[in-house]
Amino acid sequence: MHELGVVYRNIKRADRDVAHDLGRFGSATVHEAMGRVGLMKPYMRPIYAGAQVSGTAVTVLLQPGDNWMMHVAAEQIQPGDIVVAACTTDNTDGFFGDLLATSFQARGAVGLVIDGGCRDVKTLSEMKFPVWSRAISSKGTVKATLGSVNIPVVCAGMSVNPGDVVVADDDGVVVVPAALAKKTLDAAAAREANEGEKRAKLASGILGLDMYKMREPLEKAGLRYID
Amino acid sequence: MHELGVVYRNIKRADRDVAHDLGRFGSATVHEAMGRVGLMKPYMRPIYAGAQVSGTAVTVLLQPGDNWMMHVAAEQIQPGDIVVAACTTDNTDGFFGDLLATSFQARGAVGLVIDGGCRDVKTLSEMKFPVWSRAISSKGTVKATLGSVNIPVVCAGMSVNPGDVVVADDDGVVVVPAALAKKTLDAAAAREANEGEKRAKLASGILGLDMYKMREPLEKAGLRYID
Amino acid sequence: MHELGVVYRNIKRADRDVAHDLGRFGSATVHEAMGRVGLMKPYMRPIYAGAQVSGTAVTVLLQPGDNWMMHVAAEQIQPGDIVVAACTTDNTDGFFGDLLATSFQARGAVGLVIDGGCRDVKTLSEMKFPVWSRAISSKGTVKATLGSVNIPVVCAGMSVNPGDVVVADDDGVVVVPAALAKKTLDAAAAREANEGEKRAKLASGILGLDMYKMREPLEKAGLRYID
Amino acid sequence: MHELGVVYRNIKRADRDVAHDLGRFGSATVHEAMGRVGLMKPYMRPIYAGAQVSGTAVTVLLQPGDNWMMHVAAEQIQPGDIVVAACTTDNTDGFFGDLLATSFQARGAVGLVIDGGCRDVKTLSEMKFPVWSRAISSKGTVKATLGSVNIPVVCAGMSVNPGDVVVADDDGVVVVPAALAKKTLDAAAAREANEGEKRAKLASGILGLDMYKMREPLEKAGLRYID
Amino acid sequence: MHELGVVYRNIKRADRDVAHDLGRFGSATVHEAMGRVGLMKPYMRPIYAGAQVSGTAVTVLLQPGDNWMMHVAAEQIQPGDIVVAACTTDNTDGFFGDLLATSFQARGAVGLVIDGGCRDVKTLSEMKFPVWSRAISSKGTVKATLGSVNIPVVCAGMSVNPGDVVVADDDGVVVVPAALAKKTLDAAAAREANEGEKRAKLASGILGLDMYKMREPLEKAGLRYID
Amino acid sequence: MHELGVVYRNIKRADRDVAHDLGRFGSATVHEAMGRVGLMKPYMRPIYAGAQVSGTAVTVLLQPGDNWMMHVAAEQIQPGDIVVAACTTDNTDGFFGDLLATSFQARGAVGLVIDGGCRDVKTLSEMKFPVWSRAISSKGTVKATLGSVNIPVVCAGMSVNPGDVVVADDDGVVVVPAALAKKTLDAAAAREANEGEKRAKLASGILGLDMYKMREPLEKAGLRYID
Repeated sequence: MHELGVVYRNIKRADRDVAHDLGRFGSATVHEAMGRVGLMKPYMRPIYAGAQVSGTAVTVLLQPGDNWMMHVAAEQIQPGDIVVAACTTDNTDGFFGDLLATSFQARGAVGLVIDGGCRDVKTLSEMKFPVWSRAISSKGTVKATLGSVNIPVVCAGMSVNPGDVVVADDDGVVVVPAALAKKTLDAAAAREANEGEKRAKLASGILGLDMYKMREPLEKAGLRYID
Repeated sequence: MHELGVVYRNIKRADRDVAHDLGRFGSATVHEAMGRVGLMKPYMRPIYAGAQVSGTAVTVLLQPGDNWMMHVAAEQIQPGDIVVAACTTDNTDGFFGDLLATSFQARGAVGLVIDGGCRDVKTLSEMKFPVWSRAISSKGTVKATLGSVNIPVVCAGMSVNPGDVVVADDDGVVVVPAALAKKTLDAAAAREANEGEKRAKLASGILGLDMYKMREPLEKAGLRYID
Repeated sequence: MHELGVVYRNIKRADRDVAHDLGRFGSATVHEAMGRVGLMKPYMRPIYAGAQVSGTAVTVLLQPGDNWMMHVAAEQIQPGDIVVAACTTDNTDGFFGDLLATSFQARGAVGLVIDGGCRDVKTLSEMKFPVWSRAISSKGTVKATLGSVNIPVVCAGMSVNPGDVVVADDDGVVVVPAALAKKTLDAAAAREANEGEKRAKLASGILGLDMYKMREPLEKAGLRYID
Repeated sequence: MHELGVVYRNIKRADRDVAHDLGRFGSATVHEAMGRVGLMKPYMRPIYAGAQVSGTAVTVLLQPGDNWMMHVAAEQIQPGDIVVAACTTDNTDGFFGDLLATSFQARGAVGLVIDGGCRDVKTLSEMKFPVWSRAISSKGTVKATLGSVNIPVVCAGMSVNPGDVVVADDDGVVVVPAALAKKTLDAAAAREANEGEKRAKLASGILGLDMYKMREPLEKAGLRYID
Repeated sequence: MHELGVVYRNIKRADRDVAHDLGRFGSATVHEAMGRVGLMKPYMRPIYAGAQVSGTAVTVLLQPGDNWMMHVAAEQIQPGDIVVAACTTDNTDGFFGDLLATSFQARGAVGLVIDGGCRDVKTLSEMKFPVWSRAISSKGTVKATLGSVNIPVVCAGMSVNPGDVVVADDDGVVVVPAALAKKTLDAAAAREANEGEKRAKLASGILGLDMYKMREPLEKAGLRYID
Repeated sequence: MHELGVVYRNIKRADRDVAHDLGRFGSATVHEAMGRVGLMKPYMRPIYAGAQVSGTAVTVLLQPGDNWMMHVAAEQIQPGDIVVAACTTDNTDGFFGDLLATSFQARGAVGLVIDGGCRDVKTLSEMKFPVWSRAISSKGTVKATLGSVNIPVVCAGMSVNPGDVVVADDDGVVVVPAALAKKTLDAAAAREANEGEKRAKLASGILGLDMYKMREPLEKAGLRYID
């Protein structure tokens, strides 16, 4: 893993429709539907509020302070992809700005998830090109050292394989392995189906303690009420 | 302190009106009025800008990755309360989302202060249910281990007793012990009374050096001006 | 360096027009125009989005928890200045709020860059007085210990001399030594001149790989494509 | 809470013998004996390895960059005390060095726990005066602003009342409220009583799975073994 | 990835001898021999200095504050294994202490790498059971929620598959995929072969500039010497 | 400042004897003698305990993940120098190991201060070549991008000019501008002269409150004693 200097051109992407539909549920529901796994670390934040996207991952492995591979990755993008960029070491430099975003958008990318820094955030917000990053930084990068494109990477603490589905919104970024995408979509839909009913009950003042029948297990666990 | 597995049902809340009125002054003024103490650590940030609330604390002690006690706490909420959730260890998991918020809001809570993670922030923003948290994270939690409700807790570096007044806004979160609430309210009001006059002087170009008569003490302290 | 208890009254400011014009290009372009140096650490964030300013630096060295020198600095401000405040140790206290902002604005300051905390951010946003800080905190400060004004300081990892040009926007804060201001302005203008053309090409689907002629150097560096 | 400018001279200390005996068990066992509460955050580290002490707390509240109150605290020390110093804001300055240690040791203090920085660590190691701190720093402090002595404080995320028992070793720092000291000592002793037997079983190759009878609950929880 | 509630009993371990021999070279040389990849983040630190081990990975996925799976993992240990424990969220609790170490050691484990906290470090040091962890903490954990054993995990930013070789010493922790173990061993040996000669040259005063023939490429890159 | 691609060969070093003698006092005393300024941030830690050195600075500016300039710097070292390496961005890679240390030592360097990572720490400890660094990491670096040697740098938050005196020990790293070296040495000597007497008094039980005559100023400041 983390092989350097290679670009895999033919990756097996998760089903495009499934990938797209997962985005509708948002990262929290998808994370639950996955069985409570798959989430990147919460230091990954959107550069502007309100974006909610999903796509199939084109992965990039960067070297610190070097964005050469972002240009290599651009060529591998297909419509509906989301680029996921990891770095061989913790680094906050601004690997990505408005010019690359213009190129990515022209290729059909729906967003970028980068375990590094991003710049030109005002322009990116105006372009409606969403980015989730660990930092915002004006610092430019060089083009001197090889990384890789479309190899398995670890981004913000989570393994990502090329072609996996990535769901990102204001709450964070979740990775769904391609093989589990359909099953996760169904689970997410089932999960959301009865959320409306639950919300109505809670809004009417019914307690989760009663709705979820927690009083007995709490008592069993030894909870004591003191007046 | 930090007793596990207990829920205190009858807590002595600070006067409801005083608690409410303190919110009008905001965290910075209240912190000054307290004699410059009572502030939680600044990593506690609002999930959306512009909220300014105050209320009486219902406290919760959580275990990492476990939000069982949030449901127990919901039942203890009275209108005008603000829930203050601490955790036995540093943890950023998403203990709180839109369903719990619906329940808390139905019970009359004015907000949540949580030394942990929060999710569904987009929906919470639309619901106008303000949360101050150390993180935003999709990560769901289990319901397996007991914590406590309405015991004294330490939240973001500050002691909070059930019934204390909590004032939160864009600048941070301040805790006012119930016994000091009225005195602090008076001090805050007095403090704010002459802020308008000060602001007008400063806006007209008068220097703080002169307005606060700092030139002499600065000279005494040894400040040297060099041309 | 870091001499305590002195105020330099006569500092040599970079040319006012040059300082102003640099702001138009933003921190990312100016940082590139400088040869990729001069950037403060990315933990420095604006208190509200969208501000983009530049000015000549009035520097302040603060002691932790003490904002006495901010009042001393106010007197040294001339129209078009931006105040740059460093601290002798890492500290997030709220050294600056709406009263000082009123005074700074009255003196003609265009903004504040502070390696410490800021408060009253809601009011500052309404006043349109931009601040870049390491933290937001209600915590007030005392006035007991001398620092200095207009000495060379290190702010967020970058050296700043009084009179240097500071450019700040959503991407971060860049420092341009006064002696390099004109040269940097020219370089920034040249750099920006052909950005429009590049953007158009990339938007049309031309790849950076081709536009920047990267294919050959990538091959030389050993990049392998695998189908 | 966090009242400034006061020194409480007559504090009620936990029983001296109980306080001393608790130290024998170490922080991990005492923390378990407390019901898994009472631990300071793990950023508190000893300045040298191998020290294991316990004592009754004399508390200090410091201002950032100011160690005036450490001198005030010295006078309040009685033999067998351990000084616990909190700070009104996160600060790593070197509040404590070999001169203060000489004074504390002369007064009978067994150690210092400080949510701030410490210096002269080489000399302190030679003196065998143990310190648990959040940082090591040469940075000296001023004596300009009042804090307090022997008020309740929050140190490294844990509430400490004057007179509480503090147990510190290589694993961390635990606080035992004075009222619970005897009960905790008994629980710790009981807990340790059968540790030797457990260790012997495990050393012989018996698995915790069997010794603690975990196989059934694991199966009930749904654990699946796959060959 | 990150499947919960499963234990894989039959994992394919890297060749035992190769795994053992890799340890002789240390993490820095192995990391270079891998082509400069495979390293965990540097926050992973040994609990005592001087240990240098290698082994085949038994992986564990933990839940925050819960060490149940460590007991499940113990049964899967074979002589020469090193346990690698990841957690579903950042957590510093003391998942591991002297009792578990006694059990692990009895099963033949050579060490533990844990992206969480460790306790009883004094005893572990005396037992010579090396641990690399993100924190040291007395905080005990519960046994309530399932994780997994011998699934692929991400530990401290690096993917680890069960059976991979892990090399750990004072410099850090490197993961060598089982399939690359032999090749990496050969590369490490070749690399070390001429280190002695290089060291002798450098010790005699010959510069790396000359030994590595860097003067020409530096000049080409534009380095200027100024007298 | 932070000019890239240049090496200044003729730097003006502080007086060699003064530089050497300053080391005798240690970083805490020198920092006080400087008027409480000049200290690097406390994240800079020695790789082994007990080293105490001082020397004249040869400065290096590195790019992230690239140690090319360390080799260039080696040639500029003169006996008694200490190398001070800064980086254009936060980076923990292992820029320095035993081979470079052999070369530096052969050239007469007394140590290294690096705002980055260091590796081979076991060997460096055996070689008695002291390093103060922000991290320990096996991660190797490339040699692809120019930095500079002997330009003014900011290292761990402190400005360092080539030729300045650097004093480093277990408490941290202090920088003394060359022009202030002699004056600082005298101040340090004067400061230390009466430390012995103070220590004896404090050891005999005399309080700092009395020795430093603090009772009156404390009373004036409003300190209240409560029985």
